[in-house]
Amino acid sequence: MGEAPAYQALKARRMRIYHLEHLQTLATWDRLTYMPRAAAEARGAAQAELAAVLQSLQAAPELDGLFTDAANEPLAPSDRENFKLMERDRRLAAAVPDSLVALRAEATAAAAQAWSEARAANDWAQFAPALDALLAIVREVADRIGDALGVGRYDALLDGFDPGLRSATVERWFREIGEWLPGTIRAIMARQSGREPQALQAPFDLERQRQACVAAMELLGFDFAKGRLDISAHPFTAGTPEDVRVTTRFAADDCLQSLLAVIHETGHARYQAGLPQAWRGQPLGEPCSASMHEAQALIFERQLARRPAFVRALSSILDKALGSQRAFLPDNLQRLLTRVAPGRIRVEADEVTYAAHVILRTRIEAALIAGDIGADDVPLLWSKEMQSLLGVDTERDALTGPLQDIHWSQGMFGYFPAYLIGAMIAAQLFARFAETSPALDEDGPKGFRKLGSWLDENVWSRGAALNTEELVKEISGKPLSPAALRAHIEQRYGCA
Amino acid sequence: MGEAPAYQALKARRMRIYHLEHLQTLATWDRLTYMPRAAAEARGAAQAELAAVLQSLQAAPELDGLFTDAANEPLAPSDRENFKLMERDRRLAAAVPDSLVALRAEATAAAAQAWSEARAANDWAQFAPALDALLAIVREVADRIGDALGVGRYDALLDGFDPGLRSATVERWFREIGEWLPGTIRAIMARQSGREPQALQAPFDLERQRQACVAAMELLGFDFAKGRLDISAHPFTAGTPEDVRVTTRFAADDCLQSLLAVIHETGHARYQAGLPQAWRGQPLGEPCSASMHEAQALIFERQLARRPAFVRALSSILDKALGSQRAFLPDNLQRLLTRVAPGRIRVEADEVTYAAHVILRTRIEAALIAGDIGADDVPLLWSKEMQSLLGVDTERDALTGPLQDIHWSQGMFGYFPAYLIGAMIAAQLFARFAETSPALDEDGPKGFRKLGSWLDENVWSRGAALNTEELVKEISGKPLSPAALRAHIEQRYGCA
Repeated sequence: MGEAPAYQALKARRMRIYHLEHLQTLATWDRLTYMPRAAAEARGAAQAELAAVLQSLQAAPELDGLFTDAANEPLAPSDRENFKLMERDRRLAAAVPDSLVALRAEATAAAAQAWSEARAANDWAQFAPALDALLAIVREVADRIGDALGVGRYDALLDGFDPGLRSATVERWFREIGEWLPGTIRAIMARQSGREPQALQAPFDLERQRQACVAAMELLGFDFAKGRLDISAHPFTAGTPEDVRVTTRFAADDCLQSLLAVIHETGHARYQAGLPQAWRGQPLGEPCSASMHEAQALIFERQLARRPAFVRALSSILDKALGSQRAFLPDNLQRLLTRVAPGRIRVEADEVTYAAHVILRTRIEAALIAGDIGADDVPLLWSKEMQSLLGVDTERDALTGPLQDIHWSQGMFGYFPAYLIGAMIAAQLFARFAETSPALDEDGPKGFRKLGSWLDENVWSRGAALNTEELVKEISGKPLSPAALRAHIEQRYGCA
Repeated sequence: MGEAPAYQALKARRMRIYHLEHLQTLATWDRLTYMPRAAAEARGAAQAELAAVLQSLQAAPELDGLFTDAANEPLAPSDRENFKLMERDRRLAAAVPDSLVALRAEATAAAAQAWSEARAANDWAQFAPALDALLAIVREVADRIGDALGVGRYDALLDGFDPGLRSATVERWFREIGEWLPGTIRAIMARQSGREPQALQAPFDLERQRQACVAAMELLGFDFAKGRLDISAHPFTAGTPEDVRVTTRFAADDCLQSLLAVIHETGHARYQAGLPQAWRGQPLGEPCSASMHEAQALIFERQLARRPAFVRALSSILDKALGSQRAFLPDNLQRLLTRVAPGRIRVEADEVTYAAHVILRTRIEAALIAGDIGADDVPLLWSKEMQSLLGVDTERDALTGPLQDIHWSQGMFGYFPAYLIGAMIAAQLFARFAETSPALDEDGPKGFRKLGSWLDENVWSRGAALNTEELVKEISGKPLSPAALRAHIEQRYGCA
């Protein structure tokens, strides 16, 4: 330790930032769960102030000397890796001048406001000018980052969520999926046609739904000594490894929506809680990528939770919490949970059609970022893609079309691919896990817990030591590709 | 504004601190309500980090120049007042060197730990050495502050909670109360003897108790758009004027405890929410003092809530939330709420015997701070005072004796008097209010709301413009004294 004082000082600085981010994430969680409504302005000012403190801790000029000195200090290999990640963060932060950061913040606030108003009016045209203005700045930011990394513009944005991922790779994967997906969906729908499962008999008491969710979280190894379940308008996971906060929403007419959301979020939560303790607060101790995070949620929600052995456990959880009904019988529940039906809304989509929603958004945002199209072009393109990928006629409705997602209005470009890459990773990792645990389905809860231990060992405890493609290849022995996702869908839905 | 750039810069600095304190108080509230238990260490580190940021914002050396410049800037009278309070804060902070602050933090942590262990063992001797060590440092801190203010040692501590209050004044008030109190308590007990009220028929559903609490808070004008009610081990009020968070605790066998605690905390909460908007974040916008804060809670809990007109409203709230029972009949409820019975535990004491608990603690802590006695002397002195003030034999039990309060183990000396001075203020202010609103009792809820408006105008919206004694004198036309408290007790309990 005494041998690398500059590096140790940089580590200590990261730890200070980590501690303050604990409070920032708590304030965000509270804002979305318990904050009284009239407190929004004061909360916004408080969080902006803390963001400014964090920014000045990250960008302090005195760090330059520490980086220069640390580069010549003797470091253990993992410390060297950690230092490289520190340097990368710093290079990226330095690539974007403060003036551009401020412009982006303003343009984002304006776009967020315009999006809210456009939704209220169901009118894309009210959002388009603000989106174009935001895009102009996002493109410039992406160019700066791209220059620093030596990559293209959309690559630069992807890289922010998934270091090392390139748009050419994503394009190839998504093109491949886009080729077989429409046919596969038609085949599944033909198989399922006329075999309607027994519908749920609502209403469902909200407190009893909560009990079912808690039981599912416990089954999946969620540690309530280090986390909570609460309610918010949209399900999310926030917090730190020591204090992970999962939320869901309850609807009286659908007890499966809250339960599946909680299972999904529990995957995120266990990844967060399982990050390597020894690297707490350091870049090496962070999650590998957004798509790897999404994969942890999907491997629980899709690979595991819709498997017959787990569906039996869910059936018994639902019986116990909400009382028996025919819809909860395992065979019927299985059919309810694997129903495939193209629709307009991404967050309501089943696991098969979901892919189409992501491909569509990725194609459109890549074109927007490239400058090939502008905001005005989005609705028509959206309708065409929905028709060609899913056979759905959107009637150019904005609310169930391009106004449905919050991402672009928040300046979040380059994130959508993570939803589908996450599904690819989930399928590829689960296939590998199933090879190592052939008795999984006979083991019941023990088998489910084995998946957690396996992910902990192979993914969660690895932090950011490898990037997405490296980590998947190391675990599964094969390069990341859509093959496992296709095999998973064909096997589960019997349409090979 | 352009005329006083240095003063404006100091104001802006205070506002930054205010925003960050919003997050600190949220984190404390969460720690005491919803935080999962295993997160305590990470939360402690996060809050310590933010405390360090706040400390460096407050003590930044570049502020010296601003203070010098601001002193010569043309300021409006209220800005001049605000600046004086800024200077006072800075002088007090500068009086205690960082090394002493650090020593106090260590000694406090050790005393807190020792207190927990001593409670588990019900053994004062396990706490005494840590308390002596802490006292040695607190005395030194008090001497430094006393030098800066030109006052004595215990004065310096009192001043931290109640600027301008002197120990000679407190001694005089408390001696006077101590003279009539024991006789008054005996007289009330004689009157109440043999007239046992109908006891509560427990158990009480916790969710229904919560509904009763919410109804009482609404009756008292609590704005749920700017605040919340939650559960914690001990009732408290935290948060900011924009987001005030009240807590209580529920016991299945006593629905009055939670309700009275909530009424008390609502007084604190309305003071907090009613602080002057124009001075948000500035010292002039802070509460006048700890005793004035306590007075706002007590004026709701004691003066108002035990008045027959309000007891009728409480009776109907309880009927509605928990179902009718004979104990809730207004006359009986009135007797339950005004039952006087000496006991060992401060927080369980009625409004009359409560005074004795405060006098006892004030006498002992003043002697401890003066160095006239040490920690070992406390248990014997405690027993003697309990016997002489309340006629209660404590059998020298530590847990129901000097180990019952957390204050000293937290290094909090000089706070106890605020509980009784608060009661004096509450009585004196309410007497004045009653003169201005003779129809109060006929007005029902309208009358209760009038008290809120009157306090808002006279106390809450005044912030820290005047100190405790100045403000009470201005409102009531008389110097603060125990006379109104005595008159209140004699009138309510019919023992004049």
